[in-house]
Amino acid sequence: MGERRVIGWAARDTTGLLSSYSFNLRKTGPEDVVIKVLYCGIDHTDLHQMRNEIHSTNYPLVPGHEVVGEVEELGSEVRKFRVGDKVGVGCIIGSCGKCSSCKSNNEHYCADRIFTTGGTYPDGAPTHGGFSSTMVVHQAFVVRMPNKLAPEQAAPLLCGGVTAYSPLKQFTKGYSNEDVLRVGILGLGGVGHLGVIIAKAMGHHVTVISSSSKKKEEALEHLGADSYLVSSDSAEMEAAAGSLDYILDTVPAHHNIKAYLSLLKVEGRLVIVGASPQPLQFIASDLILGKKTIGGSFIGSIEETEELLEFWAEKGLKTMIEVVKTDYVNKAFERMERNDVRYRFVLDVAGSNLH
Amino acid sequence: MGERRVIGWAARDTTGLLSSYSFNLRKTGPEDVVIKVLYCGIDHTDLHQMRNEIHSTNYPLVPGHEVVGEVEELGSEVRKFRVGDKVGVGCIIGSCGKCSSCKSNNEHYCADRIFTTGGTYPDGAPTHGGFSSTMVVHQAFVVRMPNKLAPEQAAPLLCGGVTAYSPLKQFTKGYSNEDVLRVGILGLGGVGHLGVIIAKAMGHHVTVISSSSKKKEEALEHLGADSYLVSSDSAEMEAAAGSLDYILDTVPAHHNIKAYLSLLKVEGRLVIVGASPQPLQFIASDLILGKKTIGGSFIGSIEETEELLEFWAEKGLKTMIEVVKTDYVNKAFERMERNDVRYRFVLDVAGSNLH
Repeated sequence: MGERRVIGWAARDTTGLLSSYSFNLRKTGPEDVVIKVLYCGIDHTDLHQMRNEIHSTNYPLVPGHEVVGEVEELGSEVRKFRVGDKVGVGCIIGSCGKCSSCKSNNEHYCADRIFTTGGTYPDGAPTHGGFSSTMVVHQAFVVRMPNKLAPEQAAPLLCGGVTAYSPLKQFTKGYSNEDVLRVGILGLGGVGHLGVIIAKAMGHHVTVISSSSKKKEEALEHLGADSYLVSSDSAEMEAAAGSLDYILDTVPAHHNIKAYLSLLKVEGRLVIVGASPQPLQFIASDLILGKKTIGGSFIGSIEETEELLEFWAEKGLKTMIEVVKTDYVNKAFERMERNDVRYRFVLDVAGSNLH
Repeated sequence: MGERRVIGWAARDTTGLLSSYSFNLRKTGPEDVVIKVLYCGIDHTDLHQMRNEIHSTNYPLVPGHEVVGEVEELGSEVRKFRVGDKVGVGCIIGSCGKCSSCKSNNEHYCADRIFTTGGTYPDGAPTHGGFSSTMVVHQAFVVRMPNKLAPEQAAPLLCGGVTAYSPLKQFTKGYSNEDVLRVGILGLGGVGHLGVIIAKAMGHHVTVISSSSKKKEEALEHLGADSYLVSSDSAEMEAAAGSLDYILDTVPAHHNIKAYLSLLKVEGRLVIVGASPQPLQFIASDLILGKKTIGGSFIGSIEETEELLEFWAEKGLKTMIEVVKTDYVNKAFERMERNDVRYRFVLDVAGSNLH
């Protein structure tokens, strides 16, 4: 199959504003899947890239890395999918395939991973994300979508969801099924709200930790958290000292690690998934005397993404999303930036007029 | 058995200078072991306590928590030991016995652990360390000493040695015996030199990481390290990026964590055992993108201490120590403070004139 012209939405400069953009799709290789994009989640990383706040963005940039679509065409050697299948694409659309990370199904930690948006193919061509009518992706980086999942519901799982799922799943290793783990979810945004839903569905006892009581009712009533802790309330924090097995830290800005370490039991773990650009601080003895750890976790593997989609479908879980069309996309980013969304915007790509 | 008067050496004020001190030993309870002290290791923590630099020291303070001795008398219910046995005492001489740490043989993480020196018994009496002719210790906190271990050789293992052994042993969990783990030992002092010897005896590939090349020959020739990395040499550091499975960080002062995290492979772990009083900094993305962790580890359990002593005896290992008598003890602390010892002073208590 030859190249073909498609329409997407792209940022052209550091204002980050998106507008209609026409570009050539790469040729469909024997292992490629051509995907008609249905929905695409909207994430903070998109905004950082659109504004050139991470690495040096090559404009025009077509964002979007929580892509749900339908298989339109298949390369000659693709056996995993059929035309018409619902599929997903997350943050990574390539890796070296040879390193120990790739060989252990941890391709997202490959040093040569290729990002879905703002990345570069080995031939130097830029990658284009899901704010586009069509994508071409190697089959190894396309995930199966359970039939009963609504595609707009599934979109946030492909980055935000698996970012929470991967560490949550690893926490449970070494514990028997009877143990109820006490997990803290720090920050209730896109990733945090999915973390609460997933941890609850795994059977954990979930405490939402937030700087104010604003989201208390929502966390307890709508998301099903067991407990809510206001981090600015020192009496509440002291009463909760040493009570948590682990904390999933989704705060992507500077925050006081010391206070959260005090909430952990002996051997407790704080895992950071939100990248604060400012350095974070800790006191060595806070780790030493309680054998605690501070770790990091980056999205999740293709295998874990498929696991999460199955888990989500099987448990009948629901994301809290707001679906918008392209005429609203710049406004959606603006609102996301001031946390004015419960909890994730999803762009209805197929239902939008892309021109 | 009633109280009896013994002679030790104590610090009387914040100068930390030690002088002869006579005090009453507590009564020997049914589970107590009366120990004639032979040797006692000298550690930085002793100095901090003697000078009241940690918690509020109650003077007079009898330091010493790497104690090797001989059983002199036994409480009526002690079955673990016989009179004349060589035994050891480390940092902890009591704990609650009821918490999950105590129940899982991790009594050193018990919130109510009682420290060997500068600690307080439940009745309010102060604990006295190994710079003393005699000690009375509950049998649960007295460790067996293999016959073939020279007592002065064993002393540094009881705190410094097990501080390295406990995390080194835990690193190896989940790896098969055929894997050669690549471990970095950061800092070559009392704990670091024991870490090198232990990690080598475990079969690991050992890289000593030091701020200068001063100790290079010693590390490679005398301690048997496989490699030596000068942390101030940016070319050397860059060449070693991503090469280590874990780092045992023994530096008890402020240092640049970021540089050492870069040496770790994906999923690599930095474990801190030296408590810098100043906060340490890291960048979240350095952990996130490589799934790395920063952890802490505090000495080791009684069980691990006995394991280490057996391991040490079986492998025929040798500590590098300098044995001194009480007439030299203040000088020894002075030299230790400026790192002028290869690598640990051991006080010959039984061979000293304590008066």
